[in-house]
Amino acid sequence: MRIAVDAMGGDHAPREIVLGAVKAARELSGLTEIILVGDSAAIQRELDAGGGAPATVRILHAAEVVGMDELPAQAVRRKRDSSINRAMELVKRGEADALVSAGNTGALVVAATLMLRTLKGVDRPAIAAVMPTRKGPFVLIDAGANPECDAPLLRQFAVMGALYSRVILGRPNPVVGLLGIGVEASKGNEVTKEAFGLLKDARINFRGNVEGHDLFEGEVDVVVCDGFTGNVVLKTSESVARAIAHWMREEFTRNPIRMLGAMLLSGARKSMKARMDPEMYGGAPLLGVNGICIKIHGGSSRCAAFHGIRVACASAHEHLNEMIERAIESSSGAK
Amino acid sequence: MRIAVDAMGGDHAPREIVLGAVKAARELSGLTEIILVGDSAAIQRELDAGGGAPATVRILHAAEVVGMDELPAQAVRRKRDSSINRAMELVKRGEADALVSAGNTGALVVAATLMLRTLKGVDRPAIAAVMPTRKGPFVLIDAGANPECDAPLLRQFAVMGALYSRVILGRPNPVVGLLGIGVEASKGNEVTKEAFGLLKDARINFRGNVEGHDLFEGEVDVVVCDGFTGNVVLKTSESVARAIAHWMREEFTRNPIRMLGAMLLSGARKSMKARMDPEMYGGAPLLGVNGICIKIHGGSSRCAAFHGIRVACASAHEHLNEMIERAIESSSGAK
Repeated sequence: MRIAVDAMGGDHAPREIVLGAVKAARELSGLTEIILVGDSAAIQRELDAGGGAPATVRILHAAEVVGMDELPAQAVRRKRDSSINRAMELVKRGEADALVSAGNTGALVVAATLMLRTLKGVDRPAIAAVMPTRKGPFVLIDAGANPECDAPLLRQFAVMGALYSRVILGRPNPVVGLLGIGVEASKGNEVTKEAFGLLKDARINFRGNVEGHDLFEGEVDVVVCDGFTGNVVLKTSESVARAIAHWMREEFTRNPIRMLGAMLLSGARKSMKARMDPEMYGGAPLLGVNGICIKIHGGSSRCAAFHGIRVACASAHEHLNEMIERAIESSSGAK
Repeated sequence: MRIAVDAMGGDHAPREIVLGAVKAARELSGLTEIILVGDSAAIQRELDAGGGAPATVRILHAAEVVGMDELPAQAVRRKRDSSINRAMELVKRGEADALVSAGNTGALVVAATLMLRTLKGVDRPAIAAVMPTRKGPFVLIDAGANPECDAPLLRQFAVMGALYSRVILGRPNPVVGLLGIGVEASKGNEVTKEAFGLLKDARINFRGNVEGHDLFEGEVDVVVCDGFTGNVVLKTSESVARAIAHWMREEFTRNPIRMLGAMLLSGARKSMKARMDPEMYGGAPLLGVNGICIKIHGGSSRCAAFHGIRVACASAHEHLNEMIERAIESSSGAK
């Protein structure tokens, strides 16, 4: 597999991205080439500082970078020579089998949609965020690509999410839930009520509506919603976790006895953190475009970059997109 | 103040509700009467078991109860003699100044809307959930009454939420945010994009769009959204907190050293729990109906019931609804 990596995207780029890529090049079998796309001097500097790189790592220069706060459509159109555009071109021309980026999510969606186009039967691509629960990860789709969705689009998301859950996350028969505000089919907004019927008839293991309450219980493998709701869920969850961590730090350092207790629990707190860390699951694929694109968190460390590349390899290896097209086709009898 | 309490609503009714009401009758000055509405024998039993009640507590018998899972509109119409209907009638007839219920939220919304009607200038009532942050509570409005909202409705919610935050929660000049998926006015769905303009022109301290990330940072006092998104946010937040508590318990009991550490931190964990507990803020008012209605959590303890009654008293005392009508009127120039 040949993976194009946007070396300039994310808060800790290029360093963490480059180091994660080097680790991937050293450790992942089946990875034949990593193309680090971005400012060649800056990338080379990180490679040198990191003690060099295997021969499978090469650099493709791109002079521009899309900032995290830039307007996506504008940035993609104007900054022709940005790392995300150049990396996407590699995928488009078949010179890379997949792409990994920690950069501007909107720009990734726009660039992928413009250059790769959507898969057959898919109207719009969706971001499938992978999130931890008590019992393993679940896929939240769409996590932000489409603020407005109609019911047939939600059905496509459900099929794509279920496939990803099965093929990449290894859930044998993924349980799919439709995010709503009550378990009855009659509860929700107009779009979810219509989607309920479509999902019931799709070839997926549809459990019905799920509520916010159920998300982190691990009873459902795929949660389907519009990109507005999904993005709010994703960010709210991070916000709650951060607030709790903050309260914990405050309370655990209030007096010497508590500080001793916290010391005895430092191992426990580390493994809690690891279990709650979505980095392990390899980021969020952009599903539905004609090419493998993996979005990793803007704050990605080398570990997140490594896992993103691992999942990109696996997705390409499994021919994920061909499988999505077939699944969409066979499930769309009810459309 | 005379407060009608739905003694039969909630998972721990009537016991916890009755005991909370007795505590309120004993401790809250300005409370002249508490009317416990529900099965009089069951209520009397709890009063006797709790050591009797002050003279300000009386019982109004209601033979039926609306279950937590019943369809709201049906239940309100068919169960004429339910505790929620009887309690609502007291408010309607001016025999009570406010109502508190831990029962079926949908039934509360339906009964209030049918019997009390909405305030002048308000098209639909909204649930204002009060949630903890690092720096104090914020109001999430609408937390579930209206799955579909248009932009003018969101403006009404913003005005009502800001007023509640100022008058009842004591925030001097409440910062209002519109829940979105990016800070720019152009980010969001069609409704939030239109609402952005209306909120900018309303007489509130509008900060612009806020994201899920910002909710628990305490930078914003009122978060405005449709009832679908709000309900998802509310329940997702609870779900995340519960999952973290679960991980904590698992990790903290893994070996004897950790168990010792957890013991030393038991005080810290208790005060964390208290700080994260929304019960203290007195539940979620249903704003926009012509009467004070306070919804407390279905799992309410006596403490939650007490605080709900406290806030109901304060809301009636402050003439909250007259203030809402005036605020809506003066802010609707831009409508």
